[in-house]
Amino acid sequence: MTFDSLIHTFPNTQVGKNACVLSSRIRLARNLSTHPFPGWAQKPQRVETYQQIIETLSSLPCGNKSFMEELKEFDSLQKQVLVEQHLMSRELAARSTGCGLLVNESKTLSIMINEEDHFRLQSIQPGLSLKKAFRAIDKIDTEISAQLTYAYSPELGFLTSCPSNVGTGMRASVMLHLPALVLTDQIKPVLKAVSRLGLAIRGFYGEGTESLGHLYQISNQSTLGESEHDIITRIERIVKYVITAEENARAKTLQDSPLLMIDKVSRAYGTLKYAYTMTSKEALTLISLLRLGAVIGYFPNEVLSLCDHLMIKIQPAHLQLNKGTKLDAEERDRERALTIAEAIREIPPPALPAVSSETVQRD
Amino acid sequence: MTFDSLIHTFPNTQVGKNACVLSSRIRLARNLSTHPFPGWAQKPQRVETYQQIIETLSSLPCGNKSFMEELKEFDSLQKQVLVEQHLMSRELAARSTGCGLLVNESKTLSIMINEEDHFRLQSIQPGLSLKKAFRAIDKIDTEISAQLTYAYSPELGFLTSCPSNVGTGMRASVMLHLPALVLTDQIKPVLKAVSRLGLAIRGFYGEGTESLGHLYQISNQSTLGESEHDIITRIERIVKYVITAEENARAKTLQDSPLLMIDKVSRAYGTLKYAYTMTSKEALTLISLLRLGAVIGYFPNEVLSLCDHLMIKIQPAHLQLNKGTKLDAEERDRERALTIAEAIREIPPPALPAVSSETVQRD
Repeated sequence: MTFDSLIHTFPNTQVGKNACVLSSRIRLARNLSTHPFPGWAQKPQRVETYQQIIETLSSLPCGNKSFMEELKEFDSLQKQVLVEQHLMSRELAARSTGCGLLVNESKTLSIMINEEDHFRLQSIQPGLSLKKAFRAIDKIDTEISAQLTYAYSPELGFLTSCPSNVGTGMRASVMLHLPALVLTDQIKPVLKAVSRLGLAIRGFYGEGTESLGHLYQISNQSTLGESEHDIITRIERIVKYVITAEENARAKTLQDSPLLMIDKVSRAYGTLKYAYTMTSKEALTLISLLRLGAVIGYFPNEVLSLCDHLMIKIQPAHLQLNKGTKLDAEERDRERALTIAEAIREIPPPALPAVSSETVQRD
Repeated sequence: MTFDSLIHTFPNTQVGKNACVLSSRIRLARNLSTHPFPGWAQKPQRVETYQQIIETLSSLPCGNKSFMEELKEFDSLQKQVLVEQHLMSRELAARSTGCGLLVNESKTLSIMINEEDHFRLQSIQPGLSLKKAFRAIDKIDTEISAQLTYAYSPELGFLTSCPSNVGTGMRASVMLHLPALVLTDQIKPVLKAVSRLGLAIRGFYGEGTESLGHLYQISNQSTLGESEHDIITRIERIVKYVITAEENARAKTLQDSPLLMIDKVSRAYGTLKYAYTMTSKEALTLISLLRLGAVIGYFPNEVLSLCDHLMIKIQPAHLQLNKGTKLDAEERDRERALTIAEAIREIPPPALPAVSSETVQRD
């Protein structure tokens, strides 16, 4: 599998039920008991660990047909592309010799080697599928543990570099698109409720409080004292509550002020279609509104996955990789506008669904 | 001439040189020496004055083929339509019996009867044509004065109800579209300079400081101590300075950041095309940007006059008259968006003129 084929495929998008869930992700942190942890290891030790891990992974089913590369083989743009696709952490991207990345063909599984821990196993699935994602990564975890000895304490569970991961070593997260809650100013109480239930919720693009593209990631805070199954069940229950809140906000807005809804979506469409320059922040907001339009039914179904891919393709490294040259911020803003206009060229303008008392079609 | 034919014709728009001048207007205030001034007259006296004036105007060439009506014959919507077209002042619209309006077929001449003064003669011409406008109204003024005796003092000149009009009784004004000065933040010093030169400059829609649609009206402050010719010459000289400032601001922006210019215009186009609801204020701003695009050459020439007509057609009374029913504010906003989308449906998206090093075409 080549780098090119790696970056040009995207995971599927959930259509229909739970369309506001983009993806479910499980990440397991694992370390070998036989080698010093990455943060403690000297360079030769890290290289030795890396080589042993690579050898083992190559012999396993998950190593077959996968993309596997040491970090020193990437240039900085390639690294950034992988970060933008959430296949690699910023922390791993900052490393080089003795650190590596494995990604399977469908990009649903990836393994970071010698990041904060020896292994960061990641599994991603479209929609609300934490259990499916867990099963997939659990299989790989079992394969690896049959060949290598994990650092494990019968009392604490899996041992990790950072105490916050000790125990299951698992972080389960769900990516949600919550435009209706944002537009109706209901997002804050929902975030607060989720937080009180012991889960972390944060904006996806742009760390901190601000969420771009109305995207929010919900994940477990603690990895200790609860089984993987219990953590996943708890997250899914709370995510379903958030989904219901989003769907209610959407339904209420559509009922109370349908015109305002299509106006917002249609304006976003017009701006995305005709702007000549656009910042990343504005693009994410407008693409989010386009996605909302697809969820409501103003656009054909395929617009949903188009929006999800576009949110990645308009990131700085992707723009530069596609253009084949380094671009400064101003050039990127222009390239972003062109990329979007080209991508949505074939999408018809939003139309009120036929069930409405009055169908308004533009163009 | 019927009311319908009156309101559905619009004056021409200047294309090419001085495209930022929408129109030139001369207004003369006149009173009869033989009748009490309107503000002083009792109702029977005002009616008598009105009848004598109507009789005289009917016998004059200007009364021929013109629209002529007493104010009591209009409903409030019709009055508002005429106000929006600047054929009638708000002050006249508030009156009824014994007050009237005369408008010629091309709407270049109008006479308000028994407004603040017995006569308010108005002449309007497209582009920078104060002299032509003055000649047209001067002819009518002469015709009337041959039949009726104006209140005139050899020392002061024409006597008017308000002392600010005494002398020539003339207000000469030019309507300017100054988007480039506004966009480049240069409008304030220009307005200040004009003001220091003894002229009044004000936003056109929305009294006060705020100018909607980037429209500004420059007019003389004083009517005393200067001949009509001198006033007009002075205004035209200062207006030419403002035109140059606008053209320089436009040229500089096009040279320094052509992308920002077409981005602004193209976004305005996209929003006007796809919005489902729009306030009057936003509509004027966006139509103004569309007009700027036409001046630059992003759009065909005819878009210029389309914009000028649209700025009138999206006003509240026009929307209701065209829809044939009373509309509340929310319904008007929706009707406005539909009216605009329909009007610009055939306009192709803005394109960088061919002279540019790189032609970018969307759609």
